[in-house]
Amino acid sequence: MNDPRPIGVFDSGVGGLTVVRALEELLPHEKLVYVGDTARLPYGNKSAETVTRYSREITRFLAQRNVKVVVVACNTASAFALEALRAEATLPVLGVIDPGVQAALAATRSGRVGIIGTSGTIGSGAYQKLLLHHRPDLVITARATPLLVPLIEENWLDHEVTYCVLREYLRPMEEANIDTLVLACTHYPLLKPALAKLLGQERVLVDSAEACAVSVKRHLDQHGMRAEDGTPGRTELCLTDVPAHFASMARRFLKRPAAPPELVRVESL
Amino acid sequence: MNDPRPIGVFDSGVGGLTVVRALEELLPHEKLVYVGDTARLPYGNKSAETVTRYSREITRFLAQRNVKVVVVACNTASAFALEALRAEATLPVLGVIDPGVQAALAATRSGRVGIIGTSGTIGSGAYQKLLLHHRPDLVITARATPLLVPLIEENWLDHEVTYCVLREYLRPMEEANIDTLVLACTHYPLLKPALAKLLGQERVLVDSAEACAVSVKRHLDQHGMRAEDGTPGRTELCLTDVPAHFASMARRFLKRPAAPPELVRVESL
Repeated sequence: MNDPRPIGVFDSGVGGLTVVRALEELLPHEKLVYVGDTARLPYGNKSAETVTRYSREITRFLAQRNVKVVVVACNTASAFALEALRAEATLPVLGVIDPGVQAALAATRSGRVGIIGTSGTIGSGAYQKLLLHHRPDLVITARATPLLVPLIEENWLDHEVTYCVLREYLRPMEEANIDTLVLACTHYPLLKPALAKLLGQERVLVDSAEACAVSVKRHLDQHGMRAEDGTPGRTELCLTDVPAHFASMARRFLKRPAAPPELVRVESL
Repeated sequence: MNDPRPIGVFDSGVGGLTVVRALEELLPHEKLVYVGDTARLPYGNKSAETVTRYSREITRFLAQRNVKVVVVACNTASAFALEALRAEATLPVLGVIDPGVQAALAATRSGRVGIIGTSGTIGSGAYQKLLLHHRPDLVITARATPLLVPLIEENWLDHEVTYCVLREYLRPMEEANIDTLVLACTHYPLLKPALAKLLGQERVLVDSAEACAVSVKRHLDQHGMRAEDGTPGRTELCLTDVPAHFASMARRFLKRPAAPPELVRVESL
């Protein structure tokens, strides 16, 4: 069984391109339609109601593009909106949190797990609840780290300031002696080298973007929804605003040049 | 002559409350209606087209609230949208850039002026052009400083990290030996103590929020549009999203507790 329809992916901005990159590697024959809500980013400091409304609007947009599945490549949107999207969508909706939680459970030896993400993601308690649901004995240290996205967008990936900010944010993680850190924001994989330098090689960094791509592949396999082997893959980028430095930013997330994006309007609800 | 109608003020978020605070001090008998576009903030990294559309939508919203003047309390919106707003509005529209430029011209002795602001404001060249229009001999050092708003919203106003970021951002200003620094973003007045510590007391910090309030007062006086002396002032806050920590954030900008905000929708154009 094959399904030639594209996979829909969305995020508040360019961060979800880390999920696109992982999907392109794992599923090279799939077509992808990506929506980055760059006109209204970020989602991480907005209310659950607003993030849910935006997510519903984009899910409708993707449904109109005839996607076979909607991947919520944004931790904040997954934390706030996943249930609402599943309740109203006729399509499967996959998020980043469940895969991130599974990867963290598989990785931790000591049961001491750290989580970093936006204020919205951490404040929602979504990761914490799901981790504890599976393993009530876990010791979880969660912290909102709102400066990391701006630092990444400034491209200060190996900058003194970034290490200074990370040391501050990671202090409670060090004190709690975590062995696993969940990167609960699709921007954060770009900080893996800096995080590894500070945390040491023994600690596991759980990349929710990679974990999400693996879960999408599993879903397509289980439901006979893969595109035919041999069909050429393709990624279409739709943005609600085209910011000045989009091309260079996208390249850092995709690790390849991006095709010119399509400027789109999503209908308000 | 008196005009009892309120003054309309808007910004992408809470930063413009520094303008509200200055207006409340200068014009205690005026009613103010403030719109913070918290559902779509920030504006500083979005395109001119998108920022202009948002600004037009909010100006229409304020016109429906029967304001007597629209104050664009956002440097990015002033840089990108002021002309478009003036072209279509039947109301006077006042921005922050012209007052900031006048204040900088009055302050500088050496003619060496620095400007810090969002990527949008600095990239637009609006301050640079207007300063050079008045004094072509100025030596201007302008830098986009996108990490400052997140640092302020994190409330790290006197934090090691903030000094580290500021030192990095101010390096070209030090090298150029500026005597005046324009704070071309309504968030930045909260960093005045940190900036003064780094730059020393001889350098002048031009606060575009204060300068803007002075220009509003002058406009009302010149056109006989002040509210009657003795009428009680009042500030209404309208937000397009109510974020989790609004009350504590607003308090820092207003230097007083804020009344509960009204959640509003602005119509799309």
